[in-house]
Order: sequence, then structure tokens, then C-alpha cells
Amino acid sequence: MTDTGREVHLAERPHGVPTVDNFRIVEAPVPTPSDGEVLVRNSYFSVDPYMRGRMNAGKSYVPPFEVGQVMDGGAIGEVIASESDALPVGATVLHRYGWRDYAAGPAEAFQPVDPTLAPTVSAYLGALGMPSFTAYVGLLDIAEMRAGDAVFVSAAAGAVGSIAGQIARLRGASRVIGSAGTDAKVAYLRDTLGFDAAFNYKTAPVAEQLKKAAPEGIDVYFDNVGGDHLEAAIGSLNRHGRVAACGAISVYNATEPPPGPRNLGLIVGKRLTIRGFIVGDHNDRQQDFAREVGGWLRDGSITFQETVVEGIERSPEAFLGLLRGDNIGKMVVKLHD
Amino acid sequence: MTDTGREVHLAERPHGVPTVDNFRIVEAPVPTPSDGEVLVRNSYFSVDPYMRGRMNAGKSYVPPFEVGQVMDGGAIGEVIASESDALPVGATVLHRYGWRDYAAGPAEAFQPVDPTLAPTVSAYLGALGMPSFTAYVGLLDIAEMRAGDAVFVSAAAGAVGSIAGQIARLRGASRVIGSAGTDAKVAYLRDTLGFDAAFNYKTAPVAEQLKKAAPEGIDVYFDNVGGDHLEAAIGSLNRHGRVAACGAISVYNATEPPPGPRNLGLIVGKRLTIRGFIVGDHNDRQQDFAREVGGWLRDGSITFQETVVEGIERSPEAFLGLLRGDNIGKMVVKLHD
Repeated sequence: MTDTGREVHLAERPHGVPTVDNFRIVEAPVPTPSDGEVLVRNSYFSVDPYMRGRMNAGKSYVPPFEVGQVMDGGAIGEVIASESDALPVGATVLHRYGWRDYAAGPAEAFQPVDPTLAPTVSAYLGALGMPSFTAYVGLLDIAEMRAGDAVFVSAAAGAVGSIAGQIARLRGASRVIGSAGTDAKVAYLRDTLGFDAAFNYKTAPVAEQLKKAAPEGIDVYFDNVGGDHLEAAIGSLNRHGRVAACGAISVYNATEPPPGPRNLGLIVGKRLTIRGFIVGDHNDRQQDFAREVGGWLRDGSITFQETVVEGIERSPEAFLGLLRGDNIGKMVVKLHD
Repeated sequence: MTDTGREVHLAERPHGVPTVDNFRIVEAPVPTPSDGEVLVRNSYFSVDPYMRGRMNAGKSYVPPFEVGQVMDGGAIGEVIASESDALPVGATVLHRYGWRDYAAGPAEAFQPVDPTLAPTVSAYLGALGMPSFTAYVGLLDIAEMRAGDAVFVSAAAGAVGSIAGQIARLRGASRVIGSAGTDAKVAYLRDTLGFDAAFNYKTAPVAEQLKKAAPEGIDVYFDNVGGDHLEAAIGSLNRHGRVAACGAISVYNATEPPPGPRNLGLIVGKRLTIRGFIVGDHNDRQQDFAREVGGWLRDGSITFQETVVEGIERSPEAFLGLLRGDNIGKMVVKLHD
């Protein structure tokens, strides 16, 4: 063990598309845990689309990152020093201290997980973690998906979308349709994840492709994208259709307010519901999620993939790549073997 | 009784703002009721904003009017000939045969009402009828308004909005805010209907005026208007806020698809719900409505006003005036004393 570790700080706030100059890798002394605290060496940390919003100033549903401070967020590692009876050295723990080699804090801020239940512990940042839980809550509670519904998922090869589509299939959707931004992702959706139809939104207008992929319309739209995807979905939604508004990656870098869907007026006649949500409000569903999705992961009904970028120094790049759609499945940064 | 009566036909479909040339007043023989049928002489018929959508071709939630046919819709009158045991001559009945002096049809198509329960029978087209029921369902079931909510209503001096605002007050809203298009209407909302705040949306941007009128934000928005009202409401909605999307009169005459709210992305972080509805789906709530709102009307807790246009020949004008906002409260066409 060395005396210092690296941290990723927000160097400055981006205007529009972020660049690597917005981040700074900083060498910092490894903290010493005080009474009741533990010291953790991280194995992986998470880069997520919602972090783009936190790079801006101003309140959102999570506080913004602060300039000159570490980018916090989901991370997983091992306890290497403990001043708490609650967490022994060697425990694998999930926490929110984010983009750094070492993290220290009160034992309560670290959630022990069983590393033997996952192929790699990084799964606790993705398929066994927040993104999957987001898919579960969004699809079942927010969009109230029922057996027989035709379900459309955007950013369907991403960490959330890839699980949402599979849950839809396993919960008896009549048809699962996904959109993604490369032909390789489209093939992955159809051939590996079992989507009934999938299309590359970059090759033709979304509305047109969605109509072809779902000739009888859709009942549920799981929205990770916003913009023309949302407009197309509103156009294809059947009477009493529901939208779970999870994110809008298509407009996160916009410098001007983007126009909303031109066909929003259809929500009256079609009796549509569009509902935004934040997964953190739904922790009462955590056990249902662990039981149901955990079971599907264990028996292979749900499969997942990760895009692993190695080296903390490449984490800004990894994040920028995520916003461009370079990932298939969950994107994580790996810090050491 | 004469041998003929007048009917209003759709002469041609409008492009953009309708004109009187889109309508034709036609003289037609008074029908003779067959077995099981009744003949009704209308006292009033209803002109409603949703009828603008029905002037266009193409499917909507109600079938379009047909060129060369009578404009159908809500009307009330008296049975003057009956070939049915179910409805005697003299009964006051509500029906959907619309813009005409005389209507005949099967007795089941006519709903008898008690004329002594209303100041004038026209109330069955407004405060005791579909528009009030729309306000009730939209506010309580769709927007799930609860005591303590701050409630914003647009087109608040109209048939639906004026009742929605009063129900909100009586159901314990912390604050009721209304918008309308003239200073006289704004005064009516504040001085007669008991709104806590009201503003004229034509004198300054809606978002700005709404922020002033509801400095602590709103929890519910009852949307009759769409457009910049909806955008302003999304901006002012508090976390977990709800929108009942009832109509969008601001865009009914648009010839190009209008842009949606530029701030729709806020629905995620704020956990907003926007839900469209059609009152006809909610007939199971009719009895609750009659009991609760009927009671408030009888004891004077809810007041209402009507804008009465006399003479079937002026009905196209009445309808065009409604779309311009010439009415306070429900607009009806009166056919005879």
C-alpha cells in the first residue's frame, strides 16, 4: 500500500459537450480512518449518464458536483483498515464516495455485499445495482407494465435499458422493441437479449422505424433519451399508454432549451400518462427487486454485459464515451485487479 | 308547432381558425317519432372547445363531424311527442343530438333530468353536467389533488376551469391560482369565485406571472390550454407534482404541430406526472360527483355563470366566440323561452 491515491476532481463546469479538461486527476494522501470509520480500496467505480446533470451548477434532484472536489457516485471496493466493529477488513462494500482509489468514512456509509453472488463485483454497480433497480421500478411501478403490453425501450443496449427490456420479456410483454445507436447494439438486442425488434435510430427517423417495429402500437415506453424518441413514442402509444421518464440523454448537453414533443396534445385523446421518477424514492421495492431480478440473473434468464475501462486516468474519457454511447451495457472504471 | 325546424350542419372543414362559412343553417322537416321513440324540442344546446377537434377529419377520441351533417353534442329540451312508455310528453331530457331545434330518437338516448333542481335547465349542460364532471374527475382522480396542495387552473373562468378551481378550494387546497384572458375574468375569479390569486395571461409571460402568484410553487396543474401555460406550470410544479391534461385550447387552431414545452426534461428530477383523460371513461364517478358537487351547488358553496347566446342562427358565432374566449362560464345557445 502506498501513501497516496488518485482522485478525479471536477476542474471546471462544461458548457455543452464536456471535455477531458473539465476533469483533473489529483494525487491525495490515503486517509486514516477515525473511530467508527473504515478505509476502502476501490476496485471499480461507476460512470452514469445522470452525472452529466451534476456537472452543471444549480439544484437538481442530486446536488451538483463542486468544482475542485471529487466526483462522487457509486463505487465498490474492499475494506483495508477498519475502526468499526460493523465492518471487518476484507469486506466487499458498495458506497457513494465515487471517483477515487481510496475512500474513508463512517461504517454506515458502506453497504457490505456478497462477492460470491456476482461474476465480478462490478455487477453491484450495474446488473445487481442501481441501474437494474431503476429498470425494475421504472417498468413495473412507474409505467405499470402488465403482461400483454407492447413495450418500447430507448438506449436499450445501455445499463438500464438492457435490463428493462429483459424484465419486460420475462413479465410477459407481447412485444419488446428497443432502439440503439449502432448496428452492433441492435444485433445484441435481437440476438443476445431476445428483443422482438430493434432499430438503429441514427439510420432513419425514429417515428418511422418505431411504426414499422410496432405496427400495432406500443403500450409502454421506457424513456432514457427524450427528444425525438419521446415524440415518436407518443405517436405510437395506444390508448391508456404509459411513459416512464427515466432520463433524457439526447438533451443533456444542450445549451439551449430543447423543444418538447410537438404531439404532446395527443395525451388527452389517447389518455396517456407520462411520469418522471428517481429510483432513490423507491427503496421499499429493493427486496422485491433483489428476489425477482436476482433470481433471473442467477438462472440465466437475464444476461448482461459490461464495458470496462481500465485505469482511473482514463475515467474522464470513459464518461465522455458513455455520453456518446460507446458502451454496451453498464460502463465501469476498473482501478486494479 | 311548425312543420320544420332548423339544424346546424358542418358545411366544410376549417383550415386553422374556423369561420361562419364552415357552418350552414338548414331548414328540415320536424321528424315523427316511430315506435319506442320520442320527439324533443330543444331549449338549449352546448358549444364546447372539444368540438373544434371534431371539425377536422381523422380519428380522435370522438368521431369527427361529417360534412353535410348536423353538429351533434350536448343539448337539453322537452319531450313533445312520445311513442315510448319510458318517457312521457313534458319530460325534460338531456341528449347528444346537438345543434338543432327538434330531435327524435329512441327513448334510451334521452336522459330525463329534474328541472326543479336547477335555476335553468341549461345548468345540465354546464355546472350540473359534463363540464363540471370533467373538473371533478380531472382534479380529484387524474391530478389526485389532496388537501394542502397549491392548485393552478388555466382557462379558469371557463365552464370546466371555474368549477375545478372551486372544487380545489372546497377540498382544502392551500392556494388556488387561476389564469384567464381578460381583466374582467380575473376579477371574477378573485372576487366571485374565491381564487387566492389570478392573472391575465395576455399582459405578461405566463411563467413570470405564475411564479409571482405561487411563490412557493404549485402541486397540481389543471390544464385546459397547453402551450406556454403547460411550460410555465412544469417550471412551477413542486416535486411529485401532477398535471391533469384536459385540453389544449391554445393550439386547437394550429395548422403546424406546435412545439412542446421546452422544460419537459424537468419531469424526471421533479418526479412529475402528466396525465391525459377523457371524462367519458369515468362514469363510475358520476354518483360521487352528483352527491358532492350537487350539494355544493345547492348550498351555494359553488357558484357559476353562463354565457347565453340566443338564437340558433347565432350558434356558429357563439362557437367562434368560445374559441376566442368571449365567454365567462359555460357558453350555451338558447333556442326559445
